[in-house]
Amino acid sequence: MKEQFYNYIQALQNTITNKLEAIDGKAKFQEDPWVRAEGGGGRTRVIENGAVFEKGGVNISAVHGGLPKSMQTYFGVEEADFYACGLSLVLHPKNPFVPTVHANWRYFEMYDKQGKMVDQWFGGGQDLTPYYLFEDDVKHFHSVCKQACDKHQPEFYSNFKKRCDEYFWNAHRNEARGIGGLFFDYCKANESMDMKAWYNFVTEVGDSFLDAYIPIVLKRAETPYSQANRDWQEIRRGRYVEFNLVHDKGTLFGLKTNGRIESILMSLPPHVQWKYNHHPKEGSEENILLKVLQKPLNWV
Amino acid sequence: MKEQFYNYIQALQNTITNKLEAIDGKAKFQEDPWVRAEGGGGRTRVIENGAVFEKGGVNISAVHGGLPKSMQTYFGVEEADFYACGLSLVLHPKNPFVPTVHANWRYFEMYDKQGKMVDQWFGGGQDLTPYYLFEDDVKHFHSVCKQACDKHQPEFYSNFKKRCDEYFWNAHRNEARGIGGLFFDYCKANESMDMKAWYNFVTEVGDSFLDAYIPIVLKRAETPYSQANRDWQEIRRGRYVEFNLVHDKGTLFGLKTNGRIESILMSLPPHVQWKYNHHPKEGSEENILLKVLQKPLNWV
Repeated sequence: MKEQFYNYIQALQNTITNKLEAIDGKAKFQEDPWVRAEGGGGRTRVIENGAVFEKGGVNISAVHGGLPKSMQTYFGVEEADFYACGLSLVLHPKNPFVPTVHANWRYFEMYDKQGKMVDQWFGGGQDLTPYYLFEDDVKHFHSVCKQACDKHQPEFYSNFKKRCDEYFWNAHRNEARGIGGLFFDYCKANESMDMKAWYNFVTEVGDSFLDAYIPIVLKRAETPYSQANRDWQEIRRGRYVEFNLVHDKGTLFGLKTNGRIESILMSLPPHVQWKYNHHPKEGSEENILLKVLQKPLNWV
Repeated sequence: MKEQFYNYIQALQNTITNKLEAIDGKAKFQEDPWVRAEGGGGRTRVIENGAVFEKGGVNISAVHGGLPKSMQTYFGVEEADFYACGLSLVLHPKNPFVPTVHANWRYFEMYDKQGKMVDQWFGGGQDLTPYYLFEDDVKHFHSVCKQACDKHQPEFYSNFKKRCDEYFWNAHRNEARGIGGLFFDYCKANESMDMKAWYNFVTEVGDSFLDAYIPIVLKRAETPYSQANRDWQEIRRGRYVEFNLVHDKGTLFGLKTNGRIESILMSLPPHVQWKYNHHPKEGSEENILLKVLQKPLNWV
């Protein structure tokens, strides 16, 4: 399973970065292969200062070795060995009318000290963070997510949509990071889904990513914008930073387990603003977005 | 003691904001009084878009009530009541050759459920975060810190300087946030210092703040700078954000105990950049600063 899934994310990284470069037309991904001292490594691909993408990363990694102490505590297990691989991506477009997107698909195995596999699971998801609300875009993104889910289990979309809203909640701001999408974790073999069925589901979601996001990019990337639109985008990017540094388990995990810092923090936006006590005017486009973030809706 | 110290920080807030407004010449502090539902409140003063200060806050607060669960765990105590007051300030100058500064002076009392005071202590400090290294400025800042300390105990400066270097350590970057200053906490009555002596020490440091910082501002605020200097400042401000959101106990504490978010996050800089894997050239002014941050020095 681990080879199969790692092959999958390698190919998916190529597919996604090729497509994004073709759309951007100006910038290319810079590739940084890296090695983890304790075992494994990754292939980070970052794009900067593009015509469409101001900053973004599409990274894969496969790491293994002894489970770090902090992860033992986190998982509530004794000493163990692990294998983890996944693809993580974040794209920060330049145009404030094009949403930021994040996606991640990962696979985890745990072994006892005799090398016997004792646990395995998939996790991941994809979610959208717009700066202005276009209902059509949000409905499109969620529809693609739902179609991918519906091929597998009827309750997946509503369950994983709900978990996404819960996970990407910026508790100290009392608002969602974005308009959600899918989030799933600890997807283990059970009565209705064996690991092969989970693999089929997770790769279905991975395969749906470009369909979910690219039509929105193509539709909005040429929209004219003002400095005020751009300021708002940069202020909202501040909330993205707050979520990733204060609440995101994946980020904190990486920072505390000696992950490759630059690959983890590629998720942070290129230009960001913090204004004191900034509140958009009642009834403004900016305020309409906030209302939706404060109370996540069902879109499909 | 609590009235005496709260009177002190009220007066100090006035002294500091008056002085900063006089130097800035363009922007004024905006005052926001706020009330904490569970008891107490504060007086936030924020300056934005000044000629010298791009963003900053000089805030006081005095809060009391039942010790929140998270603080019980933190202090390792059972149910208790508390009183806490303090002044916190952060100033982000516009000119990249003027350092960012942070200071905080605080007083804490804890009571059992019969209302009897069972513990009390002072804490605080002041530290400097330059974007370019001017040894004279750093020596000046540390000299003023040392003079304030030396009036009280001979070992205070070296102890509290060391604790400052340790506390403001951006572990995931393996570098200091800035060039340090003073940091002290849990300053409780002991053989050589009763609470009155601690009060005299903490207020001595508070009184030294303007002497430590203002001469540096006056010396550097008119220095011409390039877009490259400004980019570097904004990239380094990113590290400031990372420290405050990932490591700073005060910030996380505030975020997790329902503090006033806008008063806590006034510390975040106005314009910030994150570039992927940015490293200044060997031998550049930017690199000289980094070397010092990676290995804190003794300046006086």
